[in-house]
Amino acid sequence: MEKQPLFPQIHGIMHGGDYNPEQWLDRPDILEKDIELMKKAGMNCATLGVFAWSTLEPREGEYHTQWLFDIMDKLYENGIYTILATPSGAKPVWLSEKYPEVLRVDAYGMKNHRGFRHNHCMSSMIYRQKVRAVTEKLIEGAKGHPGLLMWHISNEFNGDCYCENCVKRFQEYLARKFDNDIDKLNKAWWTTFWSHTYNDFSQIEPPYVNGEFSIMGLNLEWKRFMTWNVTDYMKSEIALLKEKTPDIPVTTNFMQMFDGLDYRVLAKELDVISWDSYPVFHNDYESFADTMSRSAFDHALMRSMKKDKPFMLMESAPGLVNWHDFNKMKRPGVHRLFSLQTVACGSDTVQYFQWRKSRGSYEQYHGAVVDHLGTDDTRVFKEVEALGKELKKIAPVCGTLVKTPVAMILDWDTMWAVEDMKGLADSTKNYVKTCVDVFRVFLKLGVDVDIISSEDELTDYRVIAAPMMYLLQGGIADKIKQFVQNGGQVLATYLTGYVDENTLCYLGGFPGDGLSQVFGVISEEIDTLYPTDKNAVLFADGGSAAVCGYAEILRITGENVTVLGSYQDDYYKGLPAVTVNRYGQGSAYYVAARMEESGMRKIIKKMLKDSGVEAVKLPKGIERHQRTADGKTYCFYFNFTGEEAVIENVYGMELFSRKELSGKLILSSFEMAVILRKIG
Amino acid sequence: MEKQPLFPQIHGIMHGGDYNPEQWLDRPDILEKDIELMKKAGMNCATLGVFAWSTLEPREGEYHTQWLFDIMDKLYENGIYTILATPSGAKPVWLSEKYPEVLRVDAYGMKNHRGFRHNHCMSSMIYRQKVRAVTEKLIEGAKGHPGLLMWHISNEFNGDCYCENCVKRFQEYLARKFDNDIDKLNKAWWTTFWSHTYNDFSQIEPPYVNGEFSIMGLNLEWKRFMTWNVTDYMKSEIALLKEKTPDIPVTTNFMQMFDGLDYRVLAKELDVISWDSYPVFHNDYESFADTMSRSAFDHALMRSMKKDKPFMLMESAPGLVNWHDFNKMKRPGVHRLFSLQTVACGSDTVQYFQWRKSRGSYEQYHGAVVDHLGTDDTRVFKEVEALGKELKKIAPVCGTLVKTPVAMILDWDTMWAVEDMKGLADSTKNYVKTCVDVFRVFLKLGVDVDIISSEDELTDYRVIAAPMMYLLQGGIADKIKQFVQNGGQVLATYLTGYVDENTLCYLGGFPGDGLSQVFGVISEEIDTLYPTDKNAVLFADGGSAAVCGYAEILRITGENVTVLGSYQDDYYKGLPAVTVNRYGQGSAYYVAARMEESGMRKIIKKMLKDSGVEAVKLPKGIERHQRTADGKTYCFYFNFTGEEAVIENVYGMELFSRKELSGKLILSSFEMAVILRKIG
Amino acid sequence: MEKQPLFPQIHGIMHGGDYNPEQWLDRPDILEKDIELMKKAGMNCATLGVFAWSTLEPREGEYHTQWLFDIMDKLYENGIYTILATPSGAKPVWLSEKYPEVLRVDAYGMKNHRGFRHNHCMSSMIYRQKVRAVTEKLIEGAKGHPGLLMWHISNEFNGDCYCENCVKRFQEYLARKFDNDIDKLNKAWWTTFWSHTYNDFSQIEPPYVNGEFSIMGLNLEWKRFMTWNVTDYMKSEIALLKEKTPDIPVTTNFMQMFDGLDYRVLAKELDVISWDSYPVFHNDYESFADTMSRSAFDHALMRSMKKDKPFMLMESAPGLVNWHDFNKMKRPGVHRLFSLQTVACGSDTVQYFQWRKSRGSYEQYHGAVVDHLGTDDTRVFKEVEALGKELKKIAPVCGTLVKTPVAMILDWDTMWAVEDMKGLADSTKNYVKTCVDVFRVFLKLGVDVDIISSEDELTDYRVIAAPMMYLLQGGIADKIKQFVQNGGQVLATYLTGYVDENTLCYLGGFPGDGLSQVFGVISEEIDTLYPTDKNAVLFADGGSAAVCGYAEILRITGENVTVLGSYQDDYYKGLPAVTVNRYGQGSAYYVAARMEESGMRKIIKKMLKDSGVEAVKLPKGIERHQRTADGKTYCFYFNFTGEEAVIENVYGMELFSRKELSGKLILSSFEMAVILRKIG
Repeated sequence: MEKQPLFPQIHGIMHGGDYNPEQWLDRPDILEKDIELMKKAGMNCATLGVFAWSTLEPREGEYHTQWLFDIMDKLYENGIYTILATPSGAKPVWLSEKYPEVLRVDAYGMKNHRGFRHNHCMSSMIYRQKVRAVTEKLIEGAKGHPGLLMWHISNEFNGDCYCENCVKRFQEYLARKFDNDIDKLNKAWWTTFWSHTYNDFSQIEPPYVNGEFSIMGLNLEWKRFMTWNVTDYMKSEIALLKEKTPDIPVTTNFMQMFDGLDYRVLAKELDVISWDSYPVFHNDYESFADTMSRSAFDHALMRSMKKDKPFMLMESAPGLVNWHDFNKMKRPGVHRLFSLQTVACGSDTVQYFQWRKSRGSYEQYHGAVVDHLGTDDTRVFKEVEALGKELKKIAPVCGTLVKTPVAMILDWDTMWAVEDMKGLADSTKNYVKTCVDVFRVFLKLGVDVDIISSEDELTDYRVIAAPMMYLLQGGIADKIKQFVQNGGQVLATYLTGYVDENTLCYLGGFPGDGLSQVFGVISEEIDTLYPTDKNAVLFADGGSAAVCGYAEILRITGENVTVLGSYQDDYYKGLPAVTVNRYGQGSAYYVAARMEESGMRKIIKKMLKDSGVEAVKLPKGIERHQRTADGKTYCFYFNFTGEEAVIENVYGMELFSRKELSGKLILSSFEMAVILRKIG
Repeated sequence: MEKQPLFPQIHGIMHGGDYNPEQWLDRPDILEKDIELMKKAGMNCATLGVFAWSTLEPREGEYHTQWLFDIMDKLYENGIYTILATPSGAKPVWLSEKYPEVLRVDAYGMKNHRGFRHNHCMSSMIYRQKVRAVTEKLIEGAKGHPGLLMWHISNEFNGDCYCENCVKRFQEYLARKFDNDIDKLNKAWWTTFWSHTYNDFSQIEPPYVNGEFSIMGLNLEWKRFMTWNVTDYMKSEIALLKEKTPDIPVTTNFMQMFDGLDYRVLAKELDVISWDSYPVFHNDYESFADTMSRSAFDHALMRSMKKDKPFMLMESAPGLVNWHDFNKMKRPGVHRLFSLQTVACGSDTVQYFQWRKSRGSYEQYHGAVVDHLGTDDTRVFKEVEALGKELKKIAPVCGTLVKTPVAMILDWDTMWAVEDMKGLADSTKNYVKTCVDVFRVFLKLGVDVDIISSEDELTDYRVIAAPMMYLLQGGIADKIKQFVQNGGQVLATYLTGYVDENTLCYLGGFPGDGLSQVFGVISEEIDTLYPTDKNAVLFADGGSAAVCGYAEILRITGENVTVLGSYQDDYYKGLPAVTVNRYGQGSAYYVAARMEESGMRKIIKKMLKDSGVEAVKLPKGIERHQRTADGKTYCFYFNFTGEEAVIENVYGMELFSRKELSGKLILSSFEMAVILRKIG
Repeated sequence: MEKQPLFPQIHGIMHGGDYNPEQWLDRPDILEKDIELMKKAGMNCATLGVFAWSTLEPREGEYHTQWLFDIMDKLYENGIYTILATPSGAKPVWLSEKYPEVLRVDAYGMKNHRGFRHNHCMSSMIYRQKVRAVTEKLIEGAKGHPGLLMWHISNEFNGDCYCENCVKRFQEYLARKFDNDIDKLNKAWWTTFWSHTYNDFSQIEPPYVNGEFSIMGLNLEWKRFMTWNVTDYMKSEIALLKEKTPDIPVTTNFMQMFDGLDYRVLAKELDVISWDSYPVFHNDYESFADTMSRSAFDHALMRSMKKDKPFMLMESAPGLVNWHDFNKMKRPGVHRLFSLQTVACGSDTVQYFQWRKSRGSYEQYHGAVVDHLGTDDTRVFKEVEALGKELKKIAPVCGTLVKTPVAMILDWDTMWAVEDMKGLADSTKNYVKTCVDVFRVFLKLGVDVDIISSEDELTDYRVIAAPMMYLLQGGIADKIKQFVQNGGQVLATYLTGYVDENTLCYLGGFPGDGLSQVFGVISEEIDTLYPTDKNAVLFADGGSAAVCGYAEILRITGENVTVLGSYQDDYYKGLPAVTVNRYGQGSAYYVAARMEESGMRKIIKKMLKDSGVEAVKLPKGIERHQRTADGKTYCFYFNFTGEEAVIENVYGMELFSRKELSGKLILSSFEMAVILRKIG
């Protein structure tokens, strides 16, 4: 495997951030200072133009773009490349004034007023025309500019629209999907219930809050349509860019496990994955190490969308953000830990929102490299500057990849379907949290995990975890069957295989679509526990693990099933809670209840061992990630605790200190190390 | 008193449920399996057509009804009677598409979009016409069918509409009510306050959320109008059915103590009372016994609407429901206990929603007799099957009635007025809960209680409890006066007799309309307690009971008043808290504060004793109900605890075991027994 | 300083309340009884006509006013003066029916329906015409009436309107404010951010909930506009009254620290300040003494709007109110304590809402002097009656003023800006609460505090506290600078001087506009604490005080700065938390963190001492206020605890007992005393 650097021009990790000079055009002194400070901070890239439309085109058809290209020149002269944004993330006032159709309509069918940020309709052809026109001006000026590194499309896509155009496009989308056969849709959505049978696609309305919210298939399809529609819009932007500047890669910035869009659909149209990360550091509900492992999960999700290249951290906050419930300052050193974890997880960039704080408006208190104070001696600036120096020291990591034999299946469709299902307890379903919890078990064993979709191939992996895989995409059941038959280890849990891709329940026993053969069990009942309810799994080989949330009552149907644990209590006391089925060459584990970490760890350790995946013994709060290429492996160790930690069996050269390690790595509190690994 | 069986055709308790074959018309194998399983489960009735409109009339005027009559035939051939529903509970899409006036308008005046279930306007004449047309087709096919047992009108009526038609009908309703005299209305509603005087009925708008919510009389009258309007609608359905099939009884299914409709008004138009019961079993906020006694309260409320015949349990959930906050499985045996309690409280049916789970849409996880698994060996199916067998053993109970000398007055008007009054603390008013709490005191003393309206006669009773009777319907004060004078025992509490039926306060002292003479007290102040405030009643004869919520400061005005308890604390320390007035031949108790159960029990025991009503000593968590006819009394005992219980003084034959009891009934945990009573 | 009595006709403290005879015109017996009871209760004034429009003008142009003047006559004959209200606080039904433009439009742009109270648009010229017409009729009849004491305009102004007229007036208001220069507005509001640049004032929409809520400058200006618009409306009412009855003073009734209107702008147009006070007595979240000191704060706020004359308590509730979460009865004696505290804080009136309870509608349970019971022997009536007698005993206090050398700066603009800023933690910003907490520290030291605006002069004072002065009005920084240079003591806290009057951040360091020179510090970071986070200030001279909420990290920039306290914990351990800068002749204290009371007390004691302001030692829960004129000082002492208290160094004559005190004042629990002070 060779290194896959994102940009040949950049030698090493990219360091940059959103830069909004349009706010300071009347302050040349500040613009000059910016360049000076960027260099001091070790910046080698800047993202321009994200919210600049009203400056670029202050009146319809009246373009003022030269200032932008002047800035690009100046940046490039100072060694700073430009990521150039199309300005469609925020539209000028004149646009919605003249063309009200660009404004969104809410879930009651009420038109929004002008204002805020994400308030334009993806279905509006006028919006697309106007975006195209201003983008063409940007292309004209930027094309061939040596500083132009990549295109950044719009900004943080999000939000539904229920306008007439959207409704019509939704109906057309459905007609295509269901082969113009309304009966097919009726069957798939089980509309007979409550007499909701449609006679024609034109009758279908979106799931208005004060309308049709009771058809699960419709609700899910509306989510899919919104993704389709945003993607369709995004493709219209990409097409123009690719036509004019075919060699410049394009991205858009994602937002964590965002509920509103299936990012994997968008990802297919992008050259590079980039995302914006804003963890709630130092909160009052989890340990710092847990905040960081959630961060690792998020990175893994992004990384796994394009496994053949590094991803980009497009935004992160120096200091603090301004929209959390409690906006705490990042403690000293946390910026470094967070940024280097990002790299450890596969990013080749560390970028910020934003370079300099805006003086006014909504985000005037969002963290930035340069404060209202304007100096280079703030704590935040100095930490950024120090990081810039460190990033240079780990330049060789650039272009290497995270490769792992373990994957977790996590689907947006499943998330949407689980959230929307009427049953269980809305307050405790927690699909994503459950996935994160399982991810953490692997991470604490030193094992990186890819987070993949049901559509992905499983053949690269030896271990697959598929928590709460409620909805089965076409084909996934067969893929799992094949995977296990060929010797794979798979882990499923309660709430697996209840519905097909239209949310119709499988008949004949859950998990459906043949999975009950793979696991050798049928789930007859699912019990929902109040937080005050107590139960546990007793393991056949000793030990127990507490149960909360959900517990299924299983029937063992396979002949090769071993019961690993059974319930301690309640009317299902003694019944199987954790099973494994020997199926073909592999093993299929079924965890019927929501078990605490120790129980999951027990099962997962066994799976890793049986499949020959290297797990390591790590002290509590220590995280390990590995990046590899060209025969070299860079191993990142993080101590996310306030105590010193000793990690055994570490061999190789530490990149910051340039010291050779021969077995023992000592990390003081909140420290980290990067080892060019040598097999010990 | 003779037995009053509901249906001569049915010999014994009815066992059945909602059956929706329209969802499976393309699966004849499943329809065939249904018949086989129904017989196995001991079903003798099925409810057809509840949500079938779009199948019966897929396009306007295009009827497909034969499938339904075929199913009726098949059921009847297999010994299963049909309860046939009119399909108006859920309308087809084409209807709202063509006639938007059938859609409801919300409390802001905004029209709903199509969809979900209860979304049609009761004032729409088009809706009535369309319902009539499809119902005529049903009648055509079902009339004279030997399997046709009864008509089930619409489904779970509920919901307000603020459309123009409704507003107009409301104004007409008011004009009729107030004799076309707008001044009469102005006085009754005290509109002078805040200058709300109306000049004409046409000016009156409903209590929109963003409109006139500040006139209590208007708010209450709107509630009454909604009941009137639904009843008017329902009568239009009944009229057609009675015209064509005069011998077939009609019902509609009620929902517990539903806030939206005064069921007693609807009840007058029905032949039989039926209702849908969905207790929250095994919750985290009350004991199982408390859940069950609330259930007994609900049954008593329904039963008391037609005291001369049994009622029907139209729906209940095998297994679980899907809309509670936490949807727990009913524990083994609970289905049996719940169903037999239903019978014990006066129902002659045990019916389910639904027979077979829908594959998709809103209620795909609502419990059913037959699961998605589709087999007869699930726990749920087996419990239903076992119950079917047991119901046959208690067939003689069928047609007997619950008769009791104790009644509680509970009015929808009072509930609405208390909820809407601006004063006290909204979070602790708890009118219905307070009634339930008083009901429980009687129940724990083995005494069944009728739950009646202020409009009912009191002459059948010896003891009357009227908790929080805030609003006095015309005539009730006189009836209570007469009742006590003639030797009755009456119990009233704080918040009695504050307002008349228009919510105008009585002048000259609460309780008004002459009741202060009956009780011999005037309430001068009412203090609202924070949950952290503490007080107690000290009884004159020893003991005390904690006070929460509310405490009135009384003046004793009667000469025959005895103070039974006084306040322990606060500025009203030592003042009377519980009094009794000797009035005529009877006694009138006034409990001025919200007292804990022990205090209420003390008072109620005394009332029962003084009036010669038999109370029994029951262990904690034991419930007793009695049904009687033809000189026979069937006494049901339930143990709702996890411990064995011994009940003394039980004589007679136990119906399940056929054993004779001579004094001592031993009930193991969660067990029950039915005794054909012999006076011991 | 001479006495400044409000009304020469009234000799002594005024005692009265809202009187609504229009509700009882068909009950002459009750109207007669009212007069009798008013005299018994010692009333010398009554407020008429507040909600009487629909009685005064039942149909458009049809006036019935004679009943009102008859009542005025009758009152006057019985020694009771009339405060006559214009009826614009609540409009008749016919008005909104015929002229829908008078109805408000909500923050979504949706028109309200008719009804409730505050539902008319201040921009409607029709509304103004109709108010003028009916008011002219009132003037005709009342002009020259010897009982007419003052005009009471409308009632409790409040509420936004987003109708087309308001939007248009807002745009005109902005054009005037920004000199018809849209670029000036764009710069002031930093609209470049998110491309919100306006091309024209006509494009500006108000901050709709579903529109432009992301421009802080717009949000703030909308608040200011609403105040401007209400004031403009109010001036239209005043102009008519002043034209016809120039000698009759006018007021309107304010509501505590009401969020919706900057009362100081309205105050300028009024002759007298009056307000409505409804404390939540006996609640479960603070001590009674804390409830009362909050009450003192509210009075101080009102008093300080017109420091040269007494204010009026226009409304308070005998007994209880009906709109708190828990509507408790005021305990015996509390009415007296509250009313006399009102006088102690500078009011020359004690007035009620209302005289007699309405029989129906929204406020039928709001406390009143006369209950539904209708008698003069209720506890409430008797307490009012007793108070009436006591007020006569302190008649000499009438016309005296509260004078103090200490002021607190509190601005509506700052409140609005702090609430709206995106940062920190919305749940803990608590601007007003923080001001109250600082006020309490002074009060517990026996020091009255004026609560002034940034626009007021500081020259009258020796000590100024300016908590959380986030927004700097033009000029205040200079005034503070001057104040300190001239020897004043000033106290600022975290969150001082972040933004200018358009909410643009100051560049170059907070506190901006030159204040960092005055305090000798720059705030580099502000950390937001979770409620579970712990920290403390360690004082250089010993002791410590807990920190919650917020903590700034300071740079010391001044040469004369002394660090008085530093942080105990966290990454800013040891850094300065409390500083004082010697600046000119004065001292500037900066408290960088939210410190508990003991810490603030320490600082404030020092400030008082250094500035020579008399502080006194008061037992816990004891409050002291002083009123002065003509060389006499009346000193009020209140014991707000359940324990007896001894206050030292009290000399003079007690007004109720007529006893002379020579050093020691003993107050039993919940007692008070008024001392005609003699310097001891």
